[in-house]
Formats: sequence, C-alpha cells, structure tokens
Amino acid sequence: MTRFGKRDESLPELIAEAARVALSDARIEQPAAMVVAAMNPEEFTGAGNYGSLIATHLGLSTVPTIRVETATSSGLAGLYAGFATVAAGLHDVVLVVGGEKMTHLPTPRVAEIIGRSIDPQERAYGTTMPALAGLITRAAMHHHGLTLREISQVAVKNHANAAHNPYAHFREPVALEAVMESRIVADPLRLFHCCPISDGAAAVVLTRHRSPVRVAGIGQGMDSIAVRYRTDLTSFRATQAAAQAAYRMAGFGPERVDVAELHDAFSPFELVSLEDTGLVPTGKAGRVTLDGETALDGRLPVNPSGGLKARGHPLAATGLAQIVELVWQLRGVATGRQVEARVGLAQSIGGLATNNWVALLEAVR
Amino acid sequence: MTRFGKRDESLPELIAEAARVALSDARIEQPAAMVVAAMNPEEFTGAGNYGSLIATHLGLSTVPTIRVETATSSGLAGLYAGFATVAAGLHDVVLVVGGEKMTHLPTPRVAEIIGRSIDPQERAYGTTMPALAGLITRAAMHHHGLTLREISQVAVKNHANAAHNPYAHFREPVALEAVMESRIVADPLRLFHCCPISDGAAAVVLTRHRSPVRVAGIGQGMDSIAVRYRTDLTSFRATQAAAQAAYRMAGFGPERVDVAELHDAFSPFELVSLEDTGLVPTGKAGRVTLDGETALDGRLPVNPSGGLKARGHPLAATGLAQIVELVWQLRGVATGRQVEARVGLAQSIGGLATNNWVALLEAVR
Repeated sequence: MTRFGKRDESLPELIAEAARVALSDARIEQPAAMVVAAMNPEEFTGAGNYGSLIATHLGLSTVPTIRVETATSSGLAGLYAGFATVAAGLHDVVLVVGGEKMTHLPTPRVAEIIGRSIDPQERAYGTTMPALAGLITRAAMHHHGLTLREISQVAVKNHANAAHNPYAHFREPVALEAVMESRIVADPLRLFHCCPISDGAAAVVLTRHRSPVRVAGIGQGMDSIAVRYRTDLTSFRATQAAAQAAYRMAGFGPERVDVAELHDAFSPFELVSLEDTGLVPTGKAGRVTLDGETALDGRLPVNPSGGLKARGHPLAATGLAQIVELVWQLRGVATGRQVEARVGLAQSIGGLATNNWVALLEAVR
Repeated sequence: MTRFGKRDESLPELIAEAARVALSDARIEQPAAMVVAAMNPEEFTGAGNYGSLIATHLGLSTVPTIRVETATSSGLAGLYAGFATVAAGLHDVVLVVGGEKMTHLPTPRVAEIIGRSIDPQERAYGTTMPALAGLITRAAMHHHGLTLREISQVAVKNHANAAHNPYAHFREPVALEAVMESRIVADPLRLFHCCPISDGAAAVVLTRHRSPVRVAGIGQGMDSIAVRYRTDLTSFRATQAAAQAAYRMAGFGPERVDVAELHDAFSPFELVSLEDTGLVPTGKAGRVTLDGETALDGRLPVNPSGGLKARGHPLAATGLAQIVELVWQLRGVATGRQVEARVGLAQSIGGLATNNWVALLEAVR
C-alpha cells in the first residue's frame, strides 16, 4: 500500500505505487487478470473507464480488468471479485487494487460525492453521512449506555497505534481530553471521532498456489439503503450477515480471531462492529476498550494499523489496506506494532452500513 | 428487458421492470446474490451506492449485491461477475441487472460523461468518442477499401430488424440514401451511422441448475486506453482476445455460431467486429453485408434485435440486452424476427475498444 494522507500524485500513480509493491512482493511479473476498486473516480478525478485506465497506466494494457464498487467498502468487494475469479478457476493469479484521490477537492464537494451513498429520499432532506452516524451514536448511548468516554478511547487507541505505522495519515498520538473537547461535527460526534479525508491506494495478489496467508472466509451482508426502514439503529445487520457468511465459509467462529481491522469511519462504529462480528458480547465493546483489551498489547488488538481514524480512509483503498495490514501481521513483519496472531478479521462498511464485508485471513505454516 | 428509448421512469424503476420479468421468467422469487451493471449512475442520475440502492428498490435489500463497470461493456462485465460467482460455487442463483438513464440530460453533458472513457491525455486535446470512431472508419476505408455504402447498409439492416422488435428505440426502417445523406457527425460518419442516446435496462438470471440456455463461453479482451498506442486502427485487439478466450472456454470456434449480436455503436464497428470475432474473413465484412448474408434471412443473422443503432444503447444495459435477445432467439420466442439458431454470440465494446467482451450462448435440448 501507499502511505495514506494528502498526496500530490494522481490516482493512477498512487494505484501503480501500491500495485508494483504487491506484484514485486508476490514475485509476479504479470497477473492473469486484475480487479480495480474505486468508489467514484469519475467525480473525484474526472476520469472513467477505470479498469482500462489503470491497466494501461501499469503497462498491463492487455490484462483483463474489471472495476467493482460497493461504496466505501469497495476494497473488500474487489477482494471478493478476485477471489471468485480464482475460485472459479477462471484465472490463477489476480491483482486486486483499490484507491481514491479526494484531498484536492474542497471538503463540501467531497461530502457531496460521498453523500450519493445515502438513500436519495433521505438525502433530499439534507442528511449527511456524519449526521446519520451521529443519530446512530445517540441511539447507542440512549439504549445501551454507551459513553462518550468509551467512544473517545477508540480514537485515542487508534492514534496511538498509527504512531507506529509509517503508512498512516496521522502519526501523532491524541489525548482523551483532546478528543472529547474537539469541536462538534454532528452531535454527539466530535471532530476526533471522525476519520479524515485521505488519498491513497492498496493492492493484494490472489493466487491458487501456496502462499503465506490464505483467505479462509469472505462474506457480504446487506441492509436497506433507507435508514428509516431499519429495525435496529444500534447494530448493523449488514455486518452481522457478512460475519456469519465469512465464519461459515471458514468453518470457525470469532473465538479463533487474534487481530481485527474494523471500519471506524466514526469511532463508535468500531464498538458496534466489535459486537456485530461477535468478537465481543453485545453491550461490552465500550468496557473492553476502556480496559485496554483491544489495544496493541491487549487480548484482541483492534486496528493495529491505526484504523480509518488514523491510518486514513481513501474509500476504495481502505478494505484492501485492512487486508495488507492483516497480511503483514500474520507474516510477522508489522514492525513496531506487531501482534501475536494466526487469524485476522477485516470488516468494511459500505455506505451507512448498507453493503458490508467481512474477510478472514489465516497464516499458512 | 425494458423497451429502450426515451423513458420517463427513473433508473431504479427501469431496472426493477427488467428484473421482475427476468425473475418471473426464471420462476425465482429471490436470487441468492445480485450484480448491478451501471456505467456512471452517479453523474447521469446523482445517486451512488448503486448495488444497495437497487437491492432496496427491488425489495431485496438483504441480498448480497455488487456493482461492476467496464464502461460501455459493463453489461457483459456483469454477466461475467455473476458467472464467476456461480462457477465458484459461492451462490447458486444470481440476478444480473444493467441499465442507464441519460435522455433527461442535455446531449453535450451526456457526451462529456461518456467521454470520460477516453484516455485523459487524448481527451485533453478535445477528442470525442465519435471523433475517434471517425478516425478508425477513415483508416478502414483507406487501408481495406471499406465503402460508405457498406457501412450504411449496416444501419439499414439493423433498422429493418428493429421494426420487428417491440423493445427497440427506433422501429422505423431507413433507406440507404437517407443514411448516406444524413448530416455529418464526425467525418466520414453521419448521423445514421451512430447509435442514439437511450434509456433502458435488461436482466438475466444465472443458475447452476439446468436451464434452456447455457453460457458456453465468456471472454474478456483489453487494449490500451490510449488510441495513439495501438498497433492497428482497423481491427480491435480487445475483441480478438475476448473472442479467443470465449471460444477456448466453449471448446468450439466461430463455425458453430448461428446468430450474433455485435456492438454497432457506430455502424462500421459491426463490420470490424464481424471480422474480429472470426465470423467473417478479414476484409469481407462489407461485402457479406451488402450481399445480405447478415440480414434476418441470411446465412448468419447479425443484430436481429436491431443492434445498438436501432434497438438503442443504454450503455450498461446493452450487453445484457444482447444476451436477452440471444436467449429469446435460442428459445425460439423472438416473434417476428426469429432465426434458426442453436449457438449465439454477443460482443460488447467498452470505451473505444479498450475493454471488450464476447459471450457464447448455446441452446440446451
């Protein structure tokens, strides 16, 4: 993956940077096929036909390439499309790349483009992604006693982790007070509960051949794009269904997961996701976070990379960056933030939890 | 599929119309997964997260859905993604839908959005899709002696076919003189050599179970997005590679193809595609067209539906509409334009032949 953050390179350049490292690491000169994950390169960068554009930019203009998109979880959708291609025996080595370039645009324009993921009728009333996240956070505080301190500790932990990650957008630790006193974005969410706008790309090589890490399971879960139709605001059906599908494919459950990369676009989402994936019993995620169980040296390290909050969130890059972090952890090369792990879980949220993914990776020894 | 043309319904409504007919025809209440093909719904309609949006609109909000895109060939990319999912054993019944809504926008805006498929550097010099198609047509006329009369006969034939297709955008026959004398769009291409801007949607159900038509082969081919890097302007490497891959998977060659749906976004492309798919020897496509061999009652009917020229070209709907037409032909229900066929070939061009697909369907008897 590339370093995430404010980058001056174009999106094809960022994707090429990640792709070259991945191909070189896998000792592959030319993949048999490629999958490009990008949420909205047309509006973010003005260019379309992105599969062809990237293939040409990589000097691989004749390699079959498709683009996939499931909003902010597009990276794991790319992993799935590549996985299906390999599993079907259609191609034996597939390069999956994902990225987004946004920081060159004014923030209101970025928010407008990301807002296209919201149900059009709800958007017509002026809602935004942070507003919906604030609504969900308020409901979790009211119904489950989630506290602002617990939510804020997620950001503190993830910034602390990112200090050890040279690829992270933010590498400065933040204090609990600073998080709790940062300015309001969408009540009760404050600035330091929200991930930044980042540029970046990540890449993964999938193969049928023996490799140090295997995809043990991958699952997708969906829920209504209209938040007003949800039966529950304080958990995400889409994550629960994705996790169930991934565990079913893997043949094991959350008890075997040693490390997790979760979608903390808003800090409370890490807590919701911890429970939705079954990693922590319902209602306990805030407590275990305050107790340090999800810290780098805890029982179950969560977001050792720094998560979306501190590593950054270049949309379609994010799911693949989670996979890259887990691969590094499972191969024992996550210098400075290495945890003891044999099984890793990645969870990615598309839109306001309308189209989510869970992937399970396992070290092959 | 829906009727193509200027439609007042929204894109989700059009896709739902096609999806419901496909599910009902296949006697499926709920697919296990879905693939949504759409080239650029964000800019054409303002809505994104299209997999989730369509799933919710169909009342199937919990059915796993991904979106795929390969520019103007996105429909067949959707077929491929669904095929891979079924072939990998990940899901047993997959609904693939594709559509586009464009006619509500001013033509220059539509051209701008479609133009994002062109290499950004070539676009910076002001080129457009019709301009590049004109360049290719001029080269074919110069190098291979293709004549304006041969090119124009493609449009005449396809309009004649569409007169029998209740789903077509245009149902009026056109005379050869009218085509040859229509106004210049991009020399030597005239208005009646160019497909219209259309709205519409199409849908296909893929299953592992026995069905009246099987996907015998599907292949993708690519070429540089930069036309200036092509070694040959008068044939499309991307179609040739796609056809080779599809024939390889099917285990047979062009000699078994009885009917074809080809990508005549510009009439000369039907002639180029006839040769690139190996259906007609190089340099003969114009002649066989004038001789009526590709007419409805000819040896090898091409575009019995009316093709992109007369059935219409709602971008991501088109590849799937080709499949729908072939399924109707192979099942013997293409009333008014039925041909004698056991094997059908669909060919779809993405961008300026940067990302092409060929699918082979075979009747199961």
